[in-house]
Amino acid sequence: MLTKTSSLSRLVAELKKLPGVGERTALRLAFHLLKSPQNLTALADALLEVRSRVRACSTCFAITEDDPCSICSGNRDAGTICVVENSQDLMALERSNAWHGVYHVLEGAISPLAGVGPSDLRIAALLERVGRGGVSEVVIATNFTVEGEATALYLTKALKPLNVKVTRLAHGIPLGSDIEFVDAATVQWALQGRNEL
Amino acid sequence: MLTKTSSLSRLVAELKKLPGVGERTALRLAFHLLKSPQNLTALADALLEVRSRVRACSTCFAITEDDPCSICSGNRDAGTICVVENSQDLMALERSNAWHGVYHVLEGAISPLAGVGPSDLRIAALLERVGRGGVSEVVIATNFTVEGEATALYLTKALKPLNVKVTRLAHGIPLGSDIEFVDAATVQWALQGRNEL
Repeated sequence: MLTKTSSLSRLVAELKKLPGVGERTALRLAFHLLKSPQNLTALADALLEVRSRVRACSTCFAITEDDPCSICSGNRDAGTICVVENSQDLMALERSNAWHGVYHVLEGAISPLAGVGPSDLRIAALLERVGRGGVSEVVIATNFTVEGEATALYLTKALKPLNVKVTRLAHGIPLGSDIEFVDAATVQWALQGRNEL
Repeated sequence: MLTKTSSLSRLVAELKKLPGVGERTALRLAFHLLKSPQNLTALADALLEVRSRVRACSTCFAITEDDPCSICSGNRDAGTICVVENSQDLMALERSNAWHGVYHVLEGAISPLAGVGPSDLRIAALLERVGRGGVSEVVIATNFTVEGEATALYLTKALKPLNVKVTRLAHGIPLGSDIEFVDAATVQWALQGRNEL
């Protein structure tokens, strides 16, 4: 039997650091990997490859393998910048196929409780990017959480003096929702933002 | 932004092979690892270490780093063998601190539906181990599932001619249970196996 100090215990300890993975799940994952050595090897290789190849784009700070990233170097409208908290949000916007501009990844949101201030984010780089000119609109697509809203407020105040149009993603009822089950604050936003047909 | 053929996509594909991990969870895990490069490196190292160091014990087929394993080479009663389906079950029995004999890991259970027959398991090795003599009792601790019960039945028939005592883990009401919520079959087993106080 394996002892507590074995390599399996070390693997279980590492797997436990993943979000949502506890002792039992980690053990289950470890045994699953032990049973299929080629999957285990492929996972280790994929991890090492990601470590060596993935970095942040020097322009928009999205994660990328090539610098500048495929969006910054692609055939996109560099005059409209969509500001997101992280690369996952960027991917969600890309999946919508509705944005043809470029992005700017803040790498977080302002959160005094977590000790994250404006200087910890890529806000200076955004202001410099907009300040260089040629930018007509900045769409703020931070999350609709306390931190995201605080960041949006800060960005709006910082961007306004640069003479650029600042917009925010629309609030409202999500597609496919039953209004009965939508929270009151969202219904309030949806009413205030109602559109003429 | 990362393209579909990137190293991140490869990592997500590998993570998705883990049990209970879908596309969204895999992406979340990948981004979590990207944010903490030392965790990523540690996980990759732990995987490679497990691959190179963990093997099956040549006596009992439990996973181990040293052959024979610490139980087979330790101060345990080699005359009583507890037969389990896999190393996870062995670990559960070890956690109970109630077994002082050795183990035999079958590496599965008989399952005609899944195409697993007796010859696919470590049954021949068990019979040979018992046949060499010096074994007074074999405790069958396969799971209480259709496959586990079928395996127990097969093992009983195969072991009986070797003149060894064959026992099975007790059925009954689990500790801390409210009898009201225990399934009928378990209650039936508990009644049939009732003990005098």
